[in-house]
Amino acid sequence: MKTQVAIIGGGPSGLLLSQLLHLKGIDTIVLERQSRDYVLSRIRAGVLEHGFAELMREAQCGERMDREGEIHDGFIIAHGGRQSRVDLHKYSGGSSVVVYGQTELTRDLYDARERMKGVVIHHAEDVQPHDMTSAAPHVTFRVGDEVQRIDCDYIIGADGFHGVSRKSIPATVLREYEKVYPFGWLGVLSRTKPVSPELIYVRHERGFALCSLRSQVLSRYYIQVPLSDKVEDWSDDAFWAELKRRLPAEVAERLITGPSIEKSIAPLRSFVAEPMRYGNMFLAGDAAHIVPPTGARGLNSAASDIHYLYHAMLAHYQNGDDSGLDNYSAKALARVWKAQRFSWWMTTMLHTFPDNIAYDQRLQQTELEYLFSSEAAQSSLAENYVGLPF
Amino acid sequence: MKTQVAIIGGGPSGLLLSQLLHLKGIDTIVLERQSRDYVLSRIRAGVLEHGFAELMREAQCGERMDREGEIHDGFIIAHGGRQSRVDLHKYSGGSSVVVYGQTELTRDLYDARERMKGVVIHHAEDVQPHDMTSAAPHVTFRVGDEVQRIDCDYIIGADGFHGVSRKSIPATVLREYEKVYPFGWLGVLSRTKPVSPELIYVRHERGFALCSLRSQVLSRYYIQVPLSDKVEDWSDDAFWAELKRRLPAEVAERLITGPSIEKSIAPLRSFVAEPMRYGNMFLAGDAAHIVPPTGARGLNSAASDIHYLYHAMLAHYQNGDDSGLDNYSAKALARVWKAQRFSWWMTTMLHTFPDNIAYDQRLQQTELEYLFSSEAAQSSLAENYVGLPF
Repeated sequence: MKTQVAIIGGGPSGLLLSQLLHLKGIDTIVLERQSRDYVLSRIRAGVLEHGFAELMREAQCGERMDREGEIHDGFIIAHGGRQSRVDLHKYSGGSSVVVYGQTELTRDLYDARERMKGVVIHHAEDVQPHDMTSAAPHVTFRVGDEVQRIDCDYIIGADGFHGVSRKSIPATVLREYEKVYPFGWLGVLSRTKPVSPELIYVRHERGFALCSLRSQVLSRYYIQVPLSDKVEDWSDDAFWAELKRRLPAEVAERLITGPSIEKSIAPLRSFVAEPMRYGNMFLAGDAAHIVPPTGARGLNSAASDIHYLYHAMLAHYQNGDDSGLDNYSAKALARVWKAQRFSWWMTTMLHTFPDNIAYDQRLQQTELEYLFSSEAAQSSLAENYVGLPF
Repeated sequence: MKTQVAIIGGGPSGLLLSQLLHLKGIDTIVLERQSRDYVLSRIRAGVLEHGFAELMREAQCGERMDREGEIHDGFIIAHGGRQSRVDLHKYSGGSSVVVYGQTELTRDLYDARERMKGVVIHHAEDVQPHDMTSAAPHVTFRVGDEVQRIDCDYIIGADGFHGVSRKSIPATVLREYEKVYPFGWLGVLSRTKPVSPELIYVRHERGFALCSLRSQVLSRYYIQVPLSDKVEDWSDDAFWAELKRRLPAEVAERLITGPSIEKSIAPLRSFVAEPMRYGNMFLAGDAAHIVPPTGARGLNSAASDIHYLYHAMLAHYQNGDDSGLDNYSAKALARVWKAQRFSWWMTTMLHTFPDNIAYDQRLQQTELEYLFSSEAAQSSLAENYVGLPF
């Protein structure tokens, strides 16, 4: 097989890039190890920054998002029993975020790829990029017993943290940065009406909590738990009871509980790999960087990579201008690190840390008190939450 | 002896309060353990926030400060070999700071106290506050062989971190918060023309550095050193050589060196004691809280306490309104903690930490890159540096 851009990974990043390039007449093939149904069963984030929503519209995949997604102009931080609202619209100069589940968004991208007869190969096993530093890279993979090969101009590694792309870059070239937080998030998805139309982030001495939502009938709640906890340790009842303990009284009172339809524990970790280009292979999204979920930067950072890659590929194929490709790694990483910084700041401000001394706990409280006393600090939070300029 | 307000400590806080109250007809006595010359030999900070300068003028002590002090509309942060300027004037909405040495300021306060025949008792030893929780507190002290007693309405503990005031509050009442940084500042004072008209804060992989000044002919430079270093380890030549290594090349080139007229190492520590009131005794300044010098909050936080105390005493003596005194501790501490937060943030952003992992180092770099890419972040820095509203 032959294509211009071979994309490893059929998650939202890979599909979005494929769709955007296809609309500009640039040929792609997407390789995905799992089935479409498996990809769509992953429960993930759902807060899309302004620029991401724009990119979905540009990809002609924004219709359902605009119809069913909810525009959020703000969110709540509960601390010390109080609820303080972050007015995103006011403090970002009129911007906002769209709450729309990653599952729905990925479904829309798959539907669009199908409509346009885009090539997405599922069950692609043993995927391996080759000759990345040559002018003629290629990718091999196996479907069933048949080994196949794609010759291409460029390879996109959008195959997630555990994917083969980053691991194919020699260790002498790659530098990895990592930070592990001493806790995880226990998340529950339930078919119940969300307790609040806006997200509520909770700082509580028993640990962080988050009231989130996927739609008006689908709620997503999280509580901070020690890394040693297991999902089996937490019955639904125990989860709801602990969540209620951390919520402000007036929120706990109106919480509607129900059976969990998904329950899982995710560790909190930060990771960045540099550079994000190796020869003619470009990394995007989780393949190059992950963040803790606090502040909803994960999916949005992936979208930001796709934004840069899309425009770089356009400049290359339409004008023979390679500056975008040459600058991709530096440009993408500059924004990635800012998202890392914001995620770290939100995580540090809102979680309890087992090793924190009393001084640090007061400093953490003060961070929130300063935040809600300062227009500048709220503007800084807002511009990061709705997404820094590309 | 009898007075309305007995002030323990003849540093800038105690003298300023004494002067302000005297001008409103409220009687004070200031007790100082050291001689006036000794107090005036202490080399300390010299960046006064806007509100502090205003308070000096209200105390009729602003004349020489306004003549000889320098208004600074901004400062420089050097990082990665670059110099980025923080435009305080622009980002604080027209405010600025005054650079005027603490020694000069204290001299002006002493002169004013002398002119007005304010009572300042030097060489007061074994100072001890008594009956603080009664309506008739008193202070005893000894000058030479003679033990004396001052009966008063209120006692002000402005006697610094090592003073007797805080230590006289029962441990069951007092809560202390402390954080020790794993490094110190080696400071050199020299009669040389400052290398820059504005302060230069330097983040460098070898450690933090600061180019500061007291006047156009008096420079104050600092470098971060390990806590194990001793002043004797550092010759003047070694100091200048290390400072130059940390400065951007174009700054190092124009640095004028000279013999040190003072050289010392100060550890970096944060400390807060709560509450700041015990019965009829009120703590102010270093007696209740200290900060690392990064960001120049120490003297300014003391001035902020004095601002609150001054207005609280006025309301009490002029209108019989005790709400200011009753709210003093909470109000002062709210601002103290914000200054602690800002000092922690500046310190953390600019110093090298021996235990930092590679991820944390990149995060620190990103903090600066984000700062200088964001109007909101620069506004937040500026409002803290010129002083948050009282």
